[in-house]
Amino acid sequence: MEPEPHRLTATDALQLIQSNKLTVESYARSLLSRIDSRDAAVKAWVHLNPDAVLEQARLLDKIPADQRGPLHGVPIAVKDVMYTKDMPTEHNSPLYKDSHVPVDAAVVATLRAAGALIFGKTTTTEFAAMVVGPATRNPHSVPPTSASANATGGIRTPGGSSSGSAAAVADFQIPLALGTQTGGSIVRPGSFNGVYGFKPTWNAVSREGCKVYAITLDTIGVFARGVGDLRLLGGVLGVEDYGFQQQGRFGGPRLEGARFGVVKSPVWESAGQGTVNALQKGKEILQKHGAVVEEVQLPAEFDNVPDWHIKIMAAEGRVNFLPEYRKDKTQIHPTLAGKVENVSGLTRAQELEAFDGVAVLRPRMDEIANRYDALLTPSVPDEAPLGLESTGSAVFNRMWTALHVPVVTVPGFGGENGMPIGLTLVAARYHDQHLLDVAEAVGKVFEEEGGWKSSL
Amino acid sequence: MEPEPHRLTATDALQLIQSNKLTVESYARSLLSRIDSRDAAVKAWVHLNPDAVLEQARLLDKIPADQRGPLHGVPIAVKDVMYTKDMPTEHNSPLYKDSHVPVDAAVVATLRAAGALIFGKTTTTEFAAMVVGPATRNPHSVPPTSASANATGGIRTPGGSSSGSAAAVADFQIPLALGTQTGGSIVRPGSFNGVYGFKPTWNAVSREGCKVYAITLDTIGVFARGVGDLRLLGGVLGVEDYGFQQQGRFGGPRLEGARFGVVKSPVWESAGQGTVNALQKGKEILQKHGAVVEEVQLPAEFDNVPDWHIKIMAAEGRVNFLPEYRKDKTQIHPTLAGKVENVSGLTRAQELEAFDGVAVLRPRMDEIANRYDALLTPSVPDEAPLGLESTGSAVFNRMWTALHVPVVTVPGFGGENGMPIGLTLVAARYHDQHLLDVAEAVGKVFEEEGGWKSSL
Repeated sequence: MEPEPHRLTATDALQLIQSNKLTVESYARSLLSRIDSRDAAVKAWVHLNPDAVLEQARLLDKIPADQRGPLHGVPIAVKDVMYTKDMPTEHNSPLYKDSHVPVDAAVVATLRAAGALIFGKTTTTEFAAMVVGPATRNPHSVPPTSASANATGGIRTPGGSSSGSAAAVADFQIPLALGTQTGGSIVRPGSFNGVYGFKPTWNAVSREGCKVYAITLDTIGVFARGVGDLRLLGGVLGVEDYGFQQQGRFGGPRLEGARFGVVKSPVWESAGQGTVNALQKGKEILQKHGAVVEEVQLPAEFDNVPDWHIKIMAAEGRVNFLPEYRKDKTQIHPTLAGKVENVSGLTRAQELEAFDGVAVLRPRMDEIANRYDALLTPSVPDEAPLGLESTGSAVFNRMWTALHVPVVTVPGFGGENGMPIGLTLVAARYHDQHLLDVAEAVGKVFEEEGGWKSSL
Repeated sequence: MEPEPHRLTATDALQLIQSNKLTVESYARSLLSRIDSRDAAVKAWVHLNPDAVLEQARLLDKIPADQRGPLHGVPIAVKDVMYTKDMPTEHNSPLYKDSHVPVDAAVVATLRAAGALIFGKTTTTEFAAMVVGPATRNPHSVPPTSASANATGGIRTPGGSSSGSAAAVADFQIPLALGTQTGGSIVRPGSFNGVYGFKPTWNAVSREGCKVYAITLDTIGVFARGVGDLRLLGGVLGVEDYGFQQQGRFGGPRLEGARFGVVKSPVWESAGQGTVNALQKGKEILQKHGAVVEEVQLPAEFDNVPDWHIKIMAAEGRVNFLPEYRKDKTQIHPTLAGKVENVSGLTRAQELEAFDGVAVLRPRMDEIANRYDALLTPSVPDEAPLGLESTGSAVFNRMWTALHVPVVTVPGFGGENGMPIGLTLVAARYHDQHLLDVAEAVGKVFEEEGGWKSSL
């Protein structure tokens, strides 16, 4: 029996659409039906207009085959911090209630020009800058449909700030969704929901039309249930490796002889048992498939990076939340108001030390990463925490975000409560397509042998 | 006789408004009248609605004195690459004809929250990324009112890309205007129009809601006819020096004993006679007032910076014009399409070399700049060129933009055709307020003794 369309990856659905075995409309209807049955439990969407989706879908179906774009009919959810010309953009802020900007963010415009079906807007924490969660629940923890939930014992966060995007992809409500990462907002929800999350090299994708939190950190990324879908979107968005001598060094799906460096990172003491086990198991799986796995001890100078990341976020947040603060500081979270007020007492000299310090280490990390096919490192401290009060910790993500390197969180492992745990693969800057090749091979064995499978 | 209000600096006008000697409405009427008499010749505005301006002005006049903001009634023009909630934003691109985004760019929101009168939108080159000029003429070159023009012999460019903002300020149509600089788009038009142009430290002011060209270079700046006005706006925008040991080292308006380093820069061979003379005269004036002036020979490693700047613009332009290219590449200038197509054949390795190379030099330039009260360096090769086909060269600005340092172009000098020429003062990153203090003292003597005065 053919799977229901909503269960397909975007790549598989695209192939069916291109061979006239599936219409965009029927695909959209399948997703809408899934959303209809699950939205009350998961609450991943902040704006979704089924009629408008179906109208777009029908328009796409009418486009002659030879005029169709490379993403023809591919449904994509958009985190509600990016402008969409046909939907509101509210940033989970009362200051932007019902705000509707009738232009597309750069990334949305590029996807739409390629024929994508911009489906709806997904939840975010306030301005993608807070850890206080939106109403979205981790789909693997939702009791009303406990027959299909992995975990028992209460509702858990889907992570954040890209909460709705990761949850919707995990729950088969959409094959692909856009998120943003300033700290760990792609990797954390990717890991917590058991899906792939891809944060490309900083500055490889335009962020015009997205809420700015920290300009040297903010990065647009993608969630999917397979690496092929990440590659599909990455290609359209212009995430390309070119001109490197080592290009193509990772030839295909074979792990035999591939080299991995395991980085426990300067914050390894934050790892819980779930992540400790996942990293150990991940190493063993790679070794079993013939890969060479080494522990990498980073030079001591990298110990500063997590702290520098926090300082850069504080310095840049102070700049970027100033307009909202001045408009009405009672309408933004006190944490954000505190950034504007510089409650941490950061001096300009400290800001420059952080900014310049991490800049020097970027090429050094590239050198280290280029000794391996990829680095392997934790995505999160452990499973998604209980409750929606906190979307969890970005402690394992800060360093990689600040270093601008591409990362993919790969699912496959589980924690003591049955919730998913991912591991992060890292490559040198602008080795994004290479990293996706590695992630595809690694993801295959982690998903098969890591011990956790989605029951959704 | 009191000057007509449109001739006032914003600081002086604000004082009159605060002491109830001038209403916002009468101030706005004076500016509108000036614009009415000059717009056909100068063409600085792309959107201006006098009725809406007067309505805003009357609303501001109704605000009780104790509820007025620090910029109460201060009229500000906005370059048409920044969103304004009550006006279109067209980026001088047919793709954005009549596009109206009903939110304010961060900087506009901050100014509006402080009580500024957002007056209208000024012309720009296409996406602030081209040298092909808009219709705006340099007000000092406009023949229909030749009695008040400095130059003879034909219409000249106001420079770009912030063409209209600089021209409108020079022509007493507005006291303050916002621009952006990615190469030299504040300093060049500032110099060409005989006004002050201030590009703060990169990342000191939020660029949310502005067209993105090159994220590591784009900087919002301000034009004014006096340094007091730059300080007024800079303060509201949060451009603050704090936590430096040397804070306050330049105590006041005295040049006696102040130290200046003259940097001819790696591109000195581009200087024409007008700039050669201006720099020589500038040195002499400073020395005459008791300042110590030294030639600074930059280490050879800085020779790469202008070229790295070009590569960073190419790499980041490729990313940021992708959406427009994919939407309709026939509707963007072939130069911009060429960026997306990477016609320069840049490799990722070259991009990283430029990005990392300049990052290493930023703190080194800070060290050099901190040996002096300011560096003094050319703003432009010479006077504004004839015609509107090209807005001129950014050759003297590239390095400083890439190094993220704050710069102020100071007027006072003239070229062989009677057109203005400015010189640039530079300080270390985040020494913006210090730099404004220096620019105020230097500007006073350059304007008095440099030999060029506006006849507008």
